[in-house]
Amino acid sequence: MKRSDLIENIKRKKSFLCVGLDTDIKKIPAHLLQEEDPIFAFNKAIIDATQDLCIAYKPNLAFYESMGVKGWIAFEKTVNYIKENYPDQLIIADAKRGDIGNTSAMYARSFFEEMDIDAVTVAPYMGEDSVKPFLGYDGRWVILLALTSNKGSMDFQLTTDSEGERLFEKVLRKSQEWADEEAMMYVVGATRGSLFSDIRAIAPNHFLLVPGVGAQGGSLKEVVEYGMNKDCGLIVNSSRQILYASLGEDFAQAARTEALKVQNEMQAHLKLIF
Amino acid sequence: MKRSDLIENIKRKKSFLCVGLDTDIKKIPAHLLQEEDPIFAFNKAIIDATQDLCIAYKPNLAFYESMGVKGWIAFEKTVNYIKENYPDQLIIADAKRGDIGNTSAMYARSFFEEMDIDAVTVAPYMGEDSVKPFLGYDGRWVILLALTSNKGSMDFQLTTDSEGERLFEKVLRKSQEWADEEAMMYVVGATRGSLFSDIRAIAPNHFLLVPGVGAQGGSLKEVVEYGMNKDCGLIVNSSRQILYASLGEDFAQAARTEALKVQNEMQAHLKLIF
Repeated sequence: MKRSDLIENIKRKKSFLCVGLDTDIKKIPAHLLQEEDPIFAFNKAIIDATQDLCIAYKPNLAFYESMGVKGWIAFEKTVNYIKENYPDQLIIADAKRGDIGNTSAMYARSFFEEMDIDAVTVAPYMGEDSVKPFLGYDGRWVILLALTSNKGSMDFQLTTDSEGERLFEKVLRKSQEWADEEAMMYVVGATRGSLFSDIRAIAPNHFLLVPGVGAQGGSLKEVVEYGMNKDCGLIVNSSRQILYASLGEDFAQAARTEALKVQNEMQAHLKLIF
Repeated sequence: MKRSDLIENIKRKKSFLCVGLDTDIKKIPAHLLQEEDPIFAFNKAIIDATQDLCIAYKPNLAFYESMGVKGWIAFEKTVNYIKENYPDQLIIADAKRGDIGNTSAMYARSFFEEMDIDAVTVAPYMGEDSVKPFLGYDGRWVILLALTSNKGSMDFQLTTDSEGERLFEKVLRKSQEWADEEAMMYVVGATRGSLFSDIRAIAPNHFLLVPGVGAQGGSLKEVVEYGMNKDCGLIVNSSRQILYASLGEDFAQAARTEALKVQNEMQAHLKLIF
């Protein structure tokens, strides 16, 4: 998906919500466990109930891999279901990959060519040649970890170098030598709203994928205040708050209600720019 | 596997070789493509031909994931085959995972509980709570990326902070607050032999997993000179050089010949300490 199409979708749907498909077999409603593929049945219902309220889905690979072969099948079925039924959705594989060049190239082929996924999250620790193989696919995206939403982000990402630059700033700056805002986005955790200003100083035009709103404690208002740019420039993810809004047979309707709350808030914020 | 058992295996086999199972369907001998599961058939033959010469196998997840469900099945069959037939082998899932706590916990359960794998490579960028869920499994290992063997390692890992500490040094120092040498190892690339002295100054007792010998250009002699400690403290990986020594029907024998060359060199080096 091209950047201009993404922006068009945000305008049309009045939403920059991404629904994180962190589907956990231990948390889904009990009645689904009778289904042949409970994970896919859950995802399908969630997707059908939220697709007009969001612009992206982000399956977190860990949740699928933790179930081995069965999980992998559920993941592929989920991706195919979205592709076939809602082709305007950006599909993000939250994989946080990053390896030496020939290995990253394998991952890139796997996600972009074989699974036809739009975007992959990538970890920056191994530098340029671990990221580059994911670039150069037209209309595909690298979403590079910059500043994450967890406590451990303080351990290394906020380290200041001898010239006063923090590691996440170096990642933002350096990675712009590899690709521009048509092919790269950044993961920026929402639990530290004021740091969005520092990020926008270095990456004013990029889209930022923002996890951590909702269950992880981030505030959408703060993210918008410090992080929104003229094209919106934000994709805000919510997972647990939507997926597990109800554990009963009404789970999909409850998910829709939660997604609608977020979308309503987003619609109000988008009026500032569109 | 406990640290003492690993050291015992190294002494007994006179080897600290890890065979990297970076199995690529495009590179394996053509005659294997008729097999029901060519990847597993290849791995099985390589394992049978090298198991007495090495102390560890390291399947690189990227190569299996790139084949989707089929690849995942081949991966699980490979792990089970080693477990059943050669239980003294350390099995390392080269996954380079690292995510927020609840996601890392999913990965840890997947690798350690469901697949019964001994060790997982983990990326440090997200800090303590991304690594901790992998710890606390008795006899299981985190192998944390410290200094990698690729060109891109220069982009961030060698950044010097305001107190003169490089990022890889900070990773080594900080992570020792989370676990000791009974539960953690480090990935240290072999293409920069002299940097091993700097690593040993901070982590004198830890085992180091060293990729990059062979196809990536590292020298075993240099690694031993700067990196070996009184317990050996090294696991040196070789992948392509062994796996693809021959593309003919003699591939397993050719792999054995290559592994034997490396093991002979290792045996000579081990005489210095055991």
